[in-house]
Amino acid sequence: MAINYEDYIVDIPDYPEPGVIFKDITPLLNDEQGFTSVIDDIANHFMKEHITKVVGAEARGFLIGAPVAYKLGAGFVPARKPGKLPRSVYTESYALEYGSDELQIHRDAFTPDDRVLIVDDLVATAGTAVAQARIVERAGATLVGFGFLLELGFLNPRETIGKEFDQEVYTLIQIN
Amino acid sequence: MAINYEDYIVDIPDYPEPGVIFKDITPLLNDEQGFTSVIDDIANHFMKEHITKVVGAEARGFLIGAPVAYKLGAGFVPARKPGKLPRSVYTESYALEYGSDELQIHRDAFTPDDRVLIVDDLVATAGTAVAQARIVERAGATLVGFGFLLELGFLNPRETIGKEFDQEVYTLIQIN
Repeated sequence: MAINYEDYIVDIPDYPEPGVIFKDITPLLNDEQGFTSVIDDIANHFMKEHITKVVGAEARGFLIGAPVAYKLGAGFVPARKPGKLPRSVYTESYALEYGSDELQIHRDAFTPDDRVLIVDDLVATAGTAVAQARIVERAGATLVGFGFLLELGFLNPRETIGKEFDQEVYTLIQIN
Repeated sequence: MAINYEDYIVDIPDYPEPGVIFKDITPLLNDEQGFTSVIDDIANHFMKEHITKVVGAEARGFLIGAPVAYKLGAGFVPARKPGKLPRSVYTESYALEYGSDELQIHRDAFTPDDRVLIVDDLVATAGTAVAQARIVERAGATLVGFGFLLELGFLNPRETIGKEFDQEVYTLIQIN
């Protein structure tokens, strides 16, 4: 029987600040069938694309990206906040509601032969997704697509990604 | 052919501070065969233990713990730094070189029927491993064991864990 993912996601009103509804995915990750199904759904969608590397951003992107990489037989490339990776890195900045932040990926993480999938638990304004995609292209690898558990459609992440990248955006749950 | 994991781990001298040799595992995670093999080795070791939940600590514990949970058909329970989980939590503190820090896990993450494996990339002083194990026991679940990619034996993590817990500690790479 197919799992209705939304049954396992808890809405937290006014968290982390008033007016925001936080989507708590931990009950879905905790559930044996739910977690297995999320990873299978994203990985199976891209199974024929010969993905060699999956990228995920610290910290929640690791929760979905690392098991999707495992399922695809790919390597996993962590995108981290500044100062966490000890060797030479690519850096890309992205906008926050107030100010900006940066993501870094080791320069030797990709080769030109790599076919890369970007995975995260959530896509909202798409800032981190775009930052990761820029680094994949700077490294000369092939960006194949994006896979997300949850898409906040009212923040128009597809439009933001589409301004720079025409690869597929695949999402399990749409919130409009 | 078996993979020699240590060939994929890069020593970074004097990082993040003088006198410390940082073990950079990202080349092992990046490698398709290396990453697959690490996850298989830890998961297969505990395959007959009927693990229902794997716990991993933010952020690097997610990299190994989430795919091990997937491979075992278990759920994944994230242990996070304070303020990251939006609902009622268990909190445990652990010592740092200077001062202390805390880990939190949602109170509804475990049931008394759960059989739990704690997974991390690295065990050094074992502070975070012990904090997670205490929460598993406070929640009334069964702690089955600990699985680590890398063990810094010279910091005596087995002795520290063994003072409170007699469950198995399984490690892929020992550094003495």
